Amino acid sequence: MSHNSFGHLFRFTSFGESHGPALGCVVDGCPPLIPLTEADIQGDLDRRKPGQSKYTTQRREPDQVKILSGVMVDEDGVQKTTGTPIGLMIENTDQRSKDYSEIKTRYRPGHADYTYDAKYGIRDYRGGGRSSARETAARVAAGAIARKVVAGMTIRGALVQMGPHKVDRDNWDWDQVGQNPFFCPDAGTAKRWADYLDGIRKQGSSVGAVIEVVAENVPAGLGAPVYGKLDGDLAAAMMSINAVKGVEIGNGFEAAAITGEENADEMRMGDDGKPVFLSNKAGGVLGGISSGEPVVVRFAVKPTSSILTPRQSVTREGDEVDVMTKGRHDPCVGIRAVPVGEAMMALVLADHFLRHRGQVGT
Amino acid sequence: MSHNSFGHLFRFTSFGESHGPALGCVVDGCPPLIPLTEADIQGDLDRRKPGQSKYTTQRREPDQVKILSGVMVDEDGVQKTTGTPIGLMIENTDQRSKDYSEIKTRYRPGHADYTYDAKYGIRDYRGGGRSSARETAARVAAGAIARKVVAGMTIRGALVQMGPHKVDRDNWDWDQVGQNPFFCPDAGTAKRWADYLDGIRKQGSSVGAVIEVVAENVPAGLGAPVYGKLDGDLAAAMMSINAVKGVEIGNGFEAAAITGEENADEMRMGDDGKPVFLSNKAGGVLGGISSGEPVVVRFAVKPTSSILTPRQSVTREGDEVDVMTKGRHDPCVGIRAVPVGEAMMALVLADHFLRHRGQVGT
Amino acid sequence: MSHNSFGHLFRFTSFGESHGPALGCVVDGCPPLIPLTEADIQGDLDRRKPGQSKYTTQRREPDQVKILSGVMVDEDGVQKTTGTPIGLMIENTDQRSKDYSEIKTRYRPGHADYTYDAKYGIRDYRGGGRSSARETAARVAAGAIARKVVAGMTIRGALVQMGPHKVDRDNWDWDQVGQNPFFCPDAGTAKRWADYLDGIRKQGSSVGAVIEVVAENVPAGLGAPVYGKLDGDLAAAMMSINAVKGVEIGNGFEAAAITGEENADEMRMGDDGKPVFLSNKAGGVLGGISSGEPVVVRFAVKPTSSILTPRQSVTREGDEVDVMTKGRHDPCVGIRAVPVGEAMMALVLADHFLRHRGQVGT
Amino acid sequence: MSHNSFGHLFRFTSFGESHGPALGCVVDGCPPLIPLTEADIQGDLDRRKPGQSKYTTQRREPDQVKILSGVMVDEDGVQKTTGTPIGLMIENTDQRSKDYSEIKTRYRPGHADYTYDAKYGIRDYRGGGRSSARETAARVAAGAIARKVVAGMTIRGALVQMGPHKVDRDNWDWDQVGQNPFFCPDAGTAKRWADYLDGIRKQGSSVGAVIEVVAENVPAGLGAPVYGKLDGDLAAAMMSINAVKGVEIGNGFEAAAITGEENADEMRMGDDGKPVFLSNKAGGVLGGISSGEPVVVRFAVKPTSSILTPRQSVTREGDEVDVMTKGRHDPCVGIRAVPVGEAMMALVLADHFLRHRGQVGT
Repeated sequence: MSHNSFGHLFRFTSFGESHGPALGCVVDGCPPLIPLTEADIQGDLDRRKPGQSKYTTQRREPDQVKILSGVMVDEDGVQKTTGTPIGLMIENTDQRSKDYSEIKTRYRPGHADYTYDAKYGIRDYRGGGRSSARETAARVAAGAIARKVVAGMTIRGALVQMGPHKVDRDNWDWDQVGQNPFFCPDAGTAKRWADYLDGIRKQGSSVGAVIEVVAENVPAGLGAPVYGKLDGDLAAAMMSINAVKGVEIGNGFEAAAITGEENADEMRMGDDGKPVFLSNKAGGVLGGISSGEPVVVRFAVKPTSSILTPRQSVTREGDEVDVMTKGRHDPCVGIRAVPVGEAMMALVLADHFLRHRGQVGT
Repeated sequence: MSHNSFGHLFRFTSFGESHGPALGCVVDGCPPLIPLTEADIQGDLDRRKPGQSKYTTQRREPDQVKILSGVMVDEDGVQKTTGTPIGLMIENTDQRSKDYSEIKTRYRPGHADYTYDAKYGIRDYRGGGRSSARETAARVAAGAIARKVVAGMTIRGALVQMGPHKVDRDNWDWDQVGQNPFFCPDAGTAKRWADYLDGIRKQGSSVGAVIEVVAENVPAGLGAPVYGKLDGDLAAAMMSINAVKGVEIGNGFEAAAITGEENADEMRMGDDGKPVFLSNKAGGVLGGISSGEPVVVRFAVKPTSSILTPRQSVTREGDEVDVMTKGRHDPCVGIRAVPVGEAMMALVLADHFLRHRGQVGT
Repeated sequence: MSHNSFGHLFRFTSFGESHGPALGCVVDGCPPLIPLTEADIQGDLDRRKPGQSKYTTQRREPDQVKILSGVMVDEDGVQKTTGTPIGLMIENTDQRSKDYSEIKTRYRPGHADYTYDAKYGIRDYRGGGRSSARETAARVAAGAIARKVVAGMTIRGALVQMGPHKVDRDNWDWDQVGQNPFFCPDAGTAKRWADYLDGIRKQGSSVGAVIEVVAENVPAGLGAPVYGKLDGDLAAAMMSINAVKGVEIGNGFEAAAITGEENADEMRMGDDGKPVFLSNKAGGVLGGISSGEPVVVRFAVKPTSSILTPRQSVTREGDEVDVMTKGRHDPCVGIRAVPVGEAMMALVLADHFLRHRGQVGT
Repeated sequence: MSHNSFGHLFRFTSFGESHGPALGCVVDGCPPLIPLTEADIQGDLDRRKPGQSKYTTQRREPDQVKILSGVMVDEDGVQKTTGTPIGLMIENTDQRSKDYSEIKTRYRPGHADYTYDAKYGIRDYRGGGRSSARETAARVAAGAIARKVVAGMTIRGALVQMGPHKVDRDNWDWDQVGQNPFFCPDAGTAKRWADYLDGIRKQGSSVGAVIEVVAENVPAGLGAPVYGKLDGDLAAAMMSINAVKGVEIGNGFEAAAITGEENADEMRMGDDGKPVFLSNKAGGVLGGISSGEPVVVRFAVKPTSSILTPRQSVTREGDEVDVMTKGRHDPCVGIRAVPVGEAMMALVLADHFLRHRGQVGT
């Protein structure tokens, strides 16, 4: 058991705070002989990186990853994993030497300030410390390696709701996701979101979001009932991301409102002699095991509590105060959660791929 | 790592299929000196037991629990836990000797039939085997012990939505929950649900539901960031229950649609010198750690796929067939998930209570 | 983490005390489609069973195992594992209804009486409770399943030292092991041990022993450095057996006394094109990974503390007393540890076989 | 499960090879509010550091540790643990840019070269890669933190046998351990070992050793039967150290040779009203739980296989060759294993201290 580890056979352990010297993780259990360079990881990190548009925090971190162990250049000059633990480190560079005295003893409402203090009797108040979303950089780095373990699968995420505004699913185009600052799969929606978020940003306000992550080409059979279910692990994975308050698989909460007839994914034989499903309300998971259909997960991210409007709060010493968070932050933290969600999906699938291979052998 | 274990310091491992000789679990890590008899466990099991109204499956199982180990009668004649593993067993008795040949090779759509077969190359087709909701009896039994570990907390669940029909929250009365066959906290809603579910049942149809579980008197400080977050473990716990497709903490998906101003739970000082929150949109968890507010979880249960209307499917051999599930089943499986959700809440809290005490010492 | 679980991918969790209704275990992670009946397990249990000769405790337990879950008769009528957890139960039958009042509050020196009480504040004094060697029946049952997972390997144990008397290794004959009540691989030694142990038994004394377990046909590559080393897990496995005080791999402590030249296992190419070792001082493990040579483990079992000679002790209440243990016990508990050691070897190898297959794929 | 993690509640995960950029570890689960600086860790690292006498490898590594996370300077200016994961890094500096082509494809007999290759199909041949004893620096660093968690305990180690030469126990003086290059508790023995090891070193040979580690002031009650026994975890801990082939608790293998009368540790009441033991043959552990007596562990280290005398071996390609290891190495690697053994003792005790507190509450 480790509070800061995730996964079992493919497992990573992260460390690091917002304002310490570095953050990073150790990826353990990675199969050997997988080509891996820092550039392979950097691509995913760059997608999560702050400061890339006016819609994300203006903290400027290069988020440059260093591989400290677990790889070896083979005789053909290709750097490959060796099967030993892969140490990854990302140095923190843009830690403004600002005065933190104001929030040192004030609990920002909606943040983890109070709960960390209640638990540990001490907290790193600089930039949120361990509760900062900077920790997700370690997930994205580990996830980039996980993707290579399940290289045959396609794992993609998109923002499907910003505040009350949902994406137009009829216009869904995965190619659009990289074309706008919102990971939005529809150009028209992206345009509307831009206007909306500009308003939010100028008011010093913030707004929530829903992210959808889809994994295709996942073979049937991954997942280990009953407490290692694929959807159980996905739920834990997504809920562990900062600010997430809800997780759905397939049609999710909608399933509660409909009948068995409406909810059934009927089956026929496919041209390749394998069963196919005529719909995918289940989101690719039945009884905790993948069905061969795309695995579909959605999660809700709350609006960041760092807003310009003063809110009532208290101090460590028990004084009642008003707190207004000035610093740098994201009007919609959900945006940068898209690559994080993809990473967590990859990490869960890689772990279950190895676990399944271990137990069943293929 | 164990596919069939849940928890860390307070941990249980379950076994058993729908139609084997028995199911049960081993509860490990339970503190010593806790008074515990079979009657303490039986009460919760009886609440989950099938066949108690026309709205649940007519399978009649006494679900009588036996304690096989881990307790000892002390010198005062009180049976107490000894700190060693508690073996629990529930014998299966009402296994109708019916002919299973029909579904032996047919995959019931929406069930785990196909995925178990795809994973293991063999499946126990009798009553769903390991994927049967009978496994949840083991959770409820373990949960009854967990409740005693966190005896100061109050853990209660209720059905808050049946099909499209939500409970009237203005009339919420916990005392009503035990007064109707739906665990409904409002008498008026319960009456409406009775009519609605009668219709569903007579059609041989089924319908989904949403369950809400609330834990009160949870001290601030439980939960272990970042991959052992209290809400992450709750999400895994609830999603691992049969037929669950979504999990929310606090306001859940609603948080995505609102602004930071609307979502903030402001703080003031309470009369007891401790901080209080003026609202609980966070559902009692901030940064993965309990805040002292009630911990609120909701989960969505899909309608059972066992319905009288024939659905298209395939056989193990690749033939296309229509499947109609006659057997005994629940028109709304969500109902019996209420005590299961409570049990999982208790199990997560007991584990985190011990984990916190281990690391922090109080 | 579970105090009463062993292994990772192939994992079992045991429960049960000496004088409770039953003991048993849950075997999780077993590959599917392995033929398995109760008879397969019973054979190994019978070898461990007490009361088979005058040299072991006269408690008479049939140690009849029941499989409660995890198997299914397939269409060919063969009962096979399904990949789901296998529940095993052994009922306790010969629990003499004797008066335990004498040792109820007295700590038997050398037993776990005092330490269990110091830890838990309560202890099951009937027959040693959880600290009784009866728990090893669960290991042997689980081990019988593990053997089937690594069916190509040959796992055998023998007693190689009884008190100060070592086996004559020049006469080692595995076929002799089943021919005498000591699991002794040499008929001549067995005869000498019989005389020696008769003397010990008649004095109401006891004596220690050393057991050696050898696994052949273990492929090179099993074991996971650095904290999941094959020899590290074997050391934990053997040390966890009741009364064990030392564990060695290969030449063990002898390696400390010799030079690098003497200790080297030189290598040549075998006829099959694979490297072979010219000696096996390493006991089949290098750097925590199997080398393809036989895996050789030895462990030392202390003499049971249950002897007729009175020893000084204290009571729970702090009174100084003399304790003499009358009951039924083993003059050389090490004898019955032989099948237990084999079981633990099988369990470690099965786990590492699956772990290796998970990570590396073959 | 993690191949490269050790411990449960107090847990560390190590990474790094002999010749990569850095090695290190993540320490998770550390209680908060413990004063901790790099200097606290450096002291133990310096004791393990190579190149401190002619009797250890001449590789010169400063082994300077950096704390990357998990600490915070509090308002009194004291740097303390925050309860979040502590990232530790030690950069490799003295990686001679020598030509490794000679051993690139040759398996050094007695090393892990062959087994790593057999397992992973790739190996880091530079300085032994992950199988290098450099990894133990991470253990020592983590162990220094563990010591602070169990600050009331005294954990000390000594070399008690070098080759065939045992220490004179009648002259045991802990203060001598720091006065000679062998961690020898007797000045006279140290002198004799110096002569002996000079001879070994000049021949380019090597020799084994036995280390004893003793923990005092360990409260009764630590350890979790039956698969989390204190001695089981100690056995795994010590066996996982490079080159270790045997582990004993208390009188260890000697217990096998004696009778129950001789082996009994009798009990009386101490002046403080607690039971005391009149001897400690058990080595402070009964039934897997600490007894309050000193916890005593011994482990045997084999002679390093890196010797000047050519030994027969094979290459990756299957050619038979002679291998002579020139590089820098230790004539008696057991010497530097002393602080490593202490670290592992501290790590096991810290973990069990937290585990016990979690389950039992004090």
